[in-house]
Amino acid sequence: MTTREPHTAAILLIGDELLSGRTQDLNLAYISKKLNEVGVQVREARMVPDVEAEIVAAVNALRARYAYVFTTGGIGPTHDDITADSISAAFGVPCYYHPDAYALLEANYPPGEFTEARKRMARTPVGASLIPNPVSRAPGFRVENVFVMAGIPRVMHVMLEGALPVLEGGRPVVSRSIGVYLPEGRFGTGLGALQTRFPDVSIGSYPFLRDGRYGASIVVRGQDPARVAEAAEDVRVMLSGIGGAPFDEETA
Amino acid sequence: MTTREPHTAAILLIGDELLSGRTQDLNLAYISKKLNEVGVQVREARMVPDVEAEIVAAVNALRARYAYVFTTGGIGPTHDDITADSISAAFGVPCYYHPDAYALLEANYPPGEFTEARKRMARTPVGASLIPNPVSRAPGFRVENVFVMAGIPRVMHVMLEGALPVLEGGRPVVSRSIGVYLPEGRFGTGLGALQTRFPDVSIGSYPFLRDGRYGASIVVRGQDPARVAEAAEDVRVMLSGIGGAPFDEETA
Repeated sequence: MTTREPHTAAILLIGDELLSGRTQDLNLAYISKKLNEVGVQVREARMVPDVEAEIVAAVNALRARYAYVFTTGGIGPTHDDITADSISAAFGVPCYYHPDAYALLEANYPPGEFTEARKRMARTPVGASLIPNPVSRAPGFRVENVFVMAGIPRVMHVMLEGALPVLEGGRPVVSRSIGVYLPEGRFGTGLGALQTRFPDVSIGSYPFLRDGRYGASIVVRGQDPARVAEAAEDVRVMLSGIGGAPFDEETA
Repeated sequence: MTTREPHTAAILLIGDELLSGRTQDLNLAYISKKLNEVGVQVREARMVPDVEAEIVAAVNALRARYAYVFTTGGIGPTHDDITADSISAAFGVPCYYHPDAYALLEANYPPGEFTEARKRMARTPVGASLIPNPVSRAPGFRVENVFVMAGIPRVMHVMLEGALPVLEGGRPVVSRSIGVYLPEGRFGTGLGALQTRFPDVSIGSYPFLRDGRYGASIVVRGQDPARVAEAAEDVRVMLSGIGGAPFDEETA
């Protein structure tokens, strides 16, 4: 057994339409913020096409390394929805019609409308537990530390809500964001020195151009709110010291 | 040497702010569409934090497998910009002040303002060639099949423009998109049969909910425009045959 770092997660986004640029992913940022609220940090994300071997390789790499893996996409009724088969292959178990999912879906359609295509949405790896879908019925599922969710944001949101309570999280990361209208080149060295003094927080600088003026958001992140506040105060003092006028930004 | 599949690419998005959900990535879809115009298909994407070991592992995995790798982020002047060091480590070469980049940046600042932080932006792996940046001067760079670009979209766009002419592409993928107000469960089996009949095109179905009505966009993609048109026409006929009213959508 490999050792999985506790309170970490990876996100696997599945779908040709994401890689071709046809569909703009909005799920990753949403999942990441929600997981952080329960103290789970997203450490890596991957995007793979609708190709079983690619999904299998990615799931197996990620589930061995992180405490949790969340996938989105590929659990609908059409032929290009191959996530259930792929997760089964990744775990080396058969893919079958999950009895509860089958019963639930069958009851959802008028007689004669529970088509072969719709039956596909009842398929899971043997041994999977279901993740409820109050929006459109067809459930997600979980196998060990892998949570398989829909790609449609509205459906993914409710599946994630159902999954959150079972996660074991640590302390959430808190952040403070400080804006300043100075180019990064003016404060880069000072900021680096502060990062060295605060090894237990992470200090990031994100440049922007607003109304023709160059500036940056400096984001201080960490699990100890007191240390984050202390580092943020020192960032503010440093920026004021070189002629900047730092201001609080909404924390991300 | 591993064999890289020709005309393929991977995208590596670098930055804590992407994984935390603070910043919404918009670069991937842009890069993917531009690459397709010159006949290069994006097959995988990864998102990693500002951690050298993670960047090194991802770059080495991707550059061995795909014809090209494009990275975004981490080439600014602050301490958290570690992409130049990481790419150097991935290729096992020193990171140095690239003479041309250094001269170019030095000439760009008034005397005394070419700070240590700004000098960081002249750093590249030894042997790298520069990618021009007409927007804000500090260049990107290329080592073998790896193209290192800025994370700020406006800057990334011009760097990509500079990189495109050197790529060796195949035939671009063309696509046709057909919309229909039918639930996927109604046409899933028919669509799967069409995919079997057209193994040389890829047929994807992307459900939507618009104005309270369920429907789907069916996207046919392939490198042979005639086959794509043929498959799209058969999709239209199939949908009409089960009572749908298929319509052309703007192709993605």
